[in-house]
Amino acid sequence: MRIVVLAGGIGGARFLRGLKQAAPDADITVIGNTGDDIHLFGLKVCPDLDTVMYTLGGGINEEQGWGRDDETFHLKEELAAYGVGPEWFGLGDRDFATHIVRTQMLGAGYPLSAVTEALCDRWKPGVRLIPMTDDRVETHVAVTLPDDASAEGPGERKAIHFQEYWVRLRASVPAEAVVPVGAELAKPAPGVLEAIAEADVVLFPPSNPVVSVGTILAVPGIREAIADAGVPVVGLSPIIGDAPVRGMADKVLAAVGVESTAAAVAEHYGSGLLDGWLVDTTDAGSVERVEAAGIRCRAVPLLMTDLEATVRMADEALALAEEVRGA
Amino acid sequence: MRIVVLAGGIGGARFLRGLKQAAPDADITVIGNTGDDIHLFGLKVCPDLDTVMYTLGGGINEEQGWGRDDETFHLKEELAAYGVGPEWFGLGDRDFATHIVRTQMLGAGYPLSAVTEALCDRWKPGVRLIPMTDDRVETHVAVTLPDDASAEGPGERKAIHFQEYWVRLRASVPAEAVVPVGAELAKPAPGVLEAIAEADVVLFPPSNPVVSVGTILAVPGIREAIADAGVPVVGLSPIIGDAPVRGMADKVLAAVGVESTAAAVAEHYGSGLLDGWLVDTTDAGSVERVEAAGIRCRAVPLLMTDLEATVRMADEALALAEEVRGA
Repeated sequence: MRIVVLAGGIGGARFLRGLKQAAPDADITVIGNTGDDIHLFGLKVCPDLDTVMYTLGGGINEEQGWGRDDETFHLKEELAAYGVGPEWFGLGDRDFATHIVRTQMLGAGYPLSAVTEALCDRWKPGVRLIPMTDDRVETHVAVTLPDDASAEGPGERKAIHFQEYWVRLRASVPAEAVVPVGAELAKPAPGVLEAIAEADVVLFPPSNPVVSVGTILAVPGIREAIADAGVPVVGLSPIIGDAPVRGMADKVLAAVGVESTAAAVAEHYGSGLLDGWLVDTTDAGSVERVEAAGIRCRAVPLLMTDLEATVRMADEALALAEEVRGA
Repeated sequence: MRIVVLAGGIGGARFLRGLKQAAPDADITVIGNTGDDIHLFGLKVCPDLDTVMYTLGGGINEEQGWGRDDETFHLKEELAAYGVGPEWFGLGDRDFATHIVRTQMLGAGYPLSAVTEALCDRWKPGVRLIPMTDDRVETHVAVTLPDDASAEGPGERKAIHFQEYWVRLRASVPAEAVVPVGAELAKPAPGVLEAIAEADVVLFPPSNPVVSVGTILAVPGIREAIADAGVPVVGLSPIIGDAPVRGMADKVLAAVGVESTAAAVAEHYGSGLLDGWLVDTTDAGSVERVEAAGIRCRAVPLLMTDLEATVRMADEALALAEEVRGA
């Protein structure tokens, strides 16, 4: 079985770990979000790709869900001592190596997809990890900074990098708009459309529907390829009982006019794209609404509390896909 | 008093620590060797400048004499895990920060002299540290690699970077030639010639006469400025009893046809450049030979065993300079 998964960072990576165990013989291709990539200290940092690679390759910091295990932060301390920032982005000493190798290879002319493959040669994640595009896409968030957060006067409206919104501001101000800058001119990376065309199932893990899955779908050609693939497309809700399981998805959902409920996210994807949707048992009451939108829906436990629970979620997603296929 | 010192790495840095204490009110300008600079992982590394900066700024690893104190090597371990080398060059996590800041500033268009000044803003070495040049000079060593060290056949003659000769091969094969590539087209960095012209004394610490002091003198204009300054120029022998105090100076002295003795090194600099020369008490027998070459010479203890001994050496050098001046 060939499975294509559209993945953001932590949620996507953890779901993939369950999926690998639920479908050990499957050929899994992960299309990774690169909209949250950022240049820091002259280095290209790809947080979502790295979270998937480290999580599946056994190098992740399990507790925080991102960054390397057994990590130190001496280089960052020294940069701060030189007065060089930003200090709010947590790059560890081991993690820096990934960004140095990536930056060197990009500088030598390799596309990000080839670089990602080379990095995965070491980590052996057990899936094929492809960035959504080799072109530069950068998610920006429009915010109005409160008086005290801005040196440039009260209520300044500006667009900031997604990482600045997410990590520095911790989504503490409303996102007025979320724009994947450059997406409209980006092309899917080599292998992306082919993997979708050959897939038996397409899955949306419980990743952020706006800044993770949404950004991937914003690359022209990807949404269409999924809609046209003629195979079951099944997603898992990242929202349980009106709040995101983790992260701050509600903040960016508001920016695109979508309420923070499992049903609203399904409707946001729409029946033209999505065939099946899993909501948490807490949200069993919304199954009817989702099905009324033309999307087959089941309520099952959706908390990835441990690997076993995650494997069961992947099993449920694959079962729903088969149900869709048989319908 | 204005003192100009031509410094290599460890020997120069340690001597400078003594000199600062011997002449606390002096205005000391250090002209640093950049011939051993190397690009690694896309970063510009300046080993000699950093050794001076860390040593005088209180950040040096005292035992090894180079690199940072309280250092870890996680980034380097990870690069090796990616198969990225060279593994023989010891870059620590804290040290990496210096090279990242330097590389970013160079990339922004600042010359190395301005970058060095910016880095010194943090370290406050208590001297003015100027690279010998803002241009690229790279010391190469011609060697014939033995059969087993080369994949390309027996006895291959090739030119390798000084760091590869010094650090990787540990000077285990004869240096057939030492060439400061690019030196003939290099210009002294801003401030170098001015500092020499305004100096009251010029000192050559017990640094390597070929690849440290020799490289600085190879930048057109520097040797001439020192010879023309009309002030005492005094050096300290890095050779004690026919062997270098530390390092492998004998290997590169052979390449330029100079025997490894304190007297031969003085003659190599020559009376056109050097006015005074300190040899170790072990080499008291060579004082006559040095003076016969037109260079005033004294035999004093020259082992920098501790700060106190180093301060005495600096005192002796300054005393000899005054003796030269009064003559």
